[in-house]
Amino acid sequence: MTNASAPLGEFDRITRYFKPLAAGFPGARGLRDDAAVFGVPPGFELVVTADAMVAGVHFFPDDSPGDIAAKLLRTNLSDLTAMGAEPLAYTLTTALPRDVGEAWLSAFAAGLGEDQARFNIGLAGGDSVSTRGPITLSVTAFGLVPAGRALPRWGGVVGDRLFVSGCIGDAALGLEIAYDRLTLDDAAAREHLLRRLRRPDPRTTLGPRLIGLASGALDVSDGLVADLGHLCEESGCAARLDAASVPLSDAARGVIGDDPTRLALALTGGDDYELLFSAPDRATPALMALAESLGVPITAVGWLEAGVPGTVRALDQRGAPLALLRRGWDHF
Amino acid sequence: MTNASAPLGEFDRITRYFKPLAAGFPGARGLRDDAAVFGVPPGFELVVTADAMVAGVHFFPDDSPGDIAAKLLRTNLSDLTAMGAEPLAYTLTTALPRDVGEAWLSAFAAGLGEDQARFNIGLAGGDSVSTRGPITLSVTAFGLVPAGRALPRWGGVVGDRLFVSGCIGDAALGLEIAYDRLTLDDAAAREHLLRRLRRPDPRTTLGPRLIGLASGALDVSDGLVADLGHLCEESGCAARLDAASVPLSDAARGVIGDDPTRLALALTGGDDYELLFSAPDRATPALMALAESLGVPITAVGWLEAGVPGTVRALDQRGAPLALLRRGWDHF
Repeated sequence: MTNASAPLGEFDRITRYFKPLAAGFPGARGLRDDAAVFGVPPGFELVVTADAMVAGVHFFPDDSPGDIAAKLLRTNLSDLTAMGAEPLAYTLTTALPRDVGEAWLSAFAAGLGEDQARFNIGLAGGDSVSTRGPITLSVTAFGLVPAGRALPRWGGVVGDRLFVSGCIGDAALGLEIAYDRLTLDDAAAREHLLRRLRRPDPRTTLGPRLIGLASGALDVSDGLVADLGHLCEESGCAARLDAASVPLSDAARGVIGDDPTRLALALTGGDDYELLFSAPDRATPALMALAESLGVPITAVGWLEAGVPGTVRALDQRGAPLALLRRGWDHF
Repeated sequence: MTNASAPLGEFDRITRYFKPLAAGFPGARGLRDDAAVFGVPPGFELVVTADAMVAGVHFFPDDSPGDIAAKLLRTNLSDLTAMGAEPLAYTLTTALPRDVGEAWLSAFAAGLGEDQARFNIGLAGGDSVSTRGPITLSVTAFGLVPAGRALPRWGGVVGDRLFVSGCIGDAALGLEIAYDRLTLDDAAAREHLLRRLRRPDPRTTLGPRLIGLASGALDVSDGLVADLGHLCEESGCAARLDAASVPLSDAARGVIGDDPTRLALALTGGDDYELLFSAPDRATPALMALAESLGVPITAVGWLEAGVPGTVRALDQRGAPLALLRRGWDHF
């Protein structure tokens, strides 16, 4: 509709910042064509997920461009690995206000490039437009999974054991720090929690290895309790979550102490991007061996049980129900 | 970052408006999982394109939600068909301000549904977030093309003939009407031009049939002259465009009359979403037969010639250079 000239036009920005990011993915055709073209190897299927992020809603406008880039890609990669997929590529659309200059774009592109190398993915295509609103970013990410073997949310069976990767609650506590609702003298702990908020660590090595072991899986984005509820709802069962078993980082453990409100926050706060999955108990030794070989902690945290589908009982170490203020965030 | 409650939360909106749109595409898994999963048939490749649209930049905020939905999908489908691909599916992310209510969403979803049926595509997945800025929509669309046969922009050869589908310039003149810079007493002509602006007609039946006939192809979005420039630049040659041959609708012809400024606008205005392609002259009879069988007009409009790559000479009917005010829009 408008033809207002920005400091650099669309074509120049694409050439300077995005074409280099597409260079490693031949299917992108160097961003020189109307679309990307790539094959899916025989015996594999494509896994496709999409996420959008808006400044002031999903990240702070003054977060570093590198952190924003990392979070944007990693939340999508987390969805892929929760399906058991190996990441392959992504498309990116950016709607940027005029005051986003070349320094921001350059740092943002550098962040994308770092994560492309880290996770072995390529930029397949995209679009770059202007907006009078906040920075708005959208990624569609692609991965490959052996045909028919994608891990569903709905594969859980009553009697299956529940497991999570890594630690839970760091990002929720980090968000409290970012909002100045929590002060922490321990600088290292503070940095750890903030970093887990800003740079989630999607378990891309773990997801594909869960095929054949896990019955149902998803990634923890809305909060452990809420996402466990999703797994249960889709699997047609209920769950018991042993809150005392939920793995916490030293930093989180220090903050939580014996404050039940803070524990509840950790269990419901979201943005963890860890994997939550169900598996028959007999798979436990294989899962522990896998955790060891990958260097990714896996912890048993409860059981799927018969009950109203979607119901989660969170129990404390004495087996008493834990008071949760909410199930999780609605990231709307 | 925020957990502000909208009239309907993300989950409810997805259930009400988007899950029904995904029902026809099994790979979407009913939007019940972390991601979509689908196969690519043996012998085919996936074609992937992404476009973003922002209210006030790419469409008028008060455009009908159905028109916005149609334009969003169709501009992406136009990219797919320019590659020779058959449309398959799309992902959609929406960032919507709070004042976008259920009536808007319902009409928007209905528009998507109509076009899904028209173009035989399914919703594979997406994300729905809130924004304090304008409506911001992003689509990544997928199509299938026989492996190795995608139509590139860069396949043009000196001596090839140039062709366009349909008519050129309607949308550019429609935009003048929408901006009240052009008044038109003929209501039918007015409606035609506005409709071509708001509801482009991507040539989805034509693109796949150009494989084996066309040497280079793209869709006309930035303007005929600018996009011909892109084809030439990527193909390493120049072009002669015979302006008098460029197909115009009756409505456009009536508006343009013998006003060279309006003719220039039609040739450079963009948003046509017609196909522009090069082919050896010997393919002309096959192309004319194809046009006849599909009911899609195809018109010869010029030639690729030796010259500085990307150079376009637009000539009038006497062979004199046409004055063009600009090459095309930078849709930034």
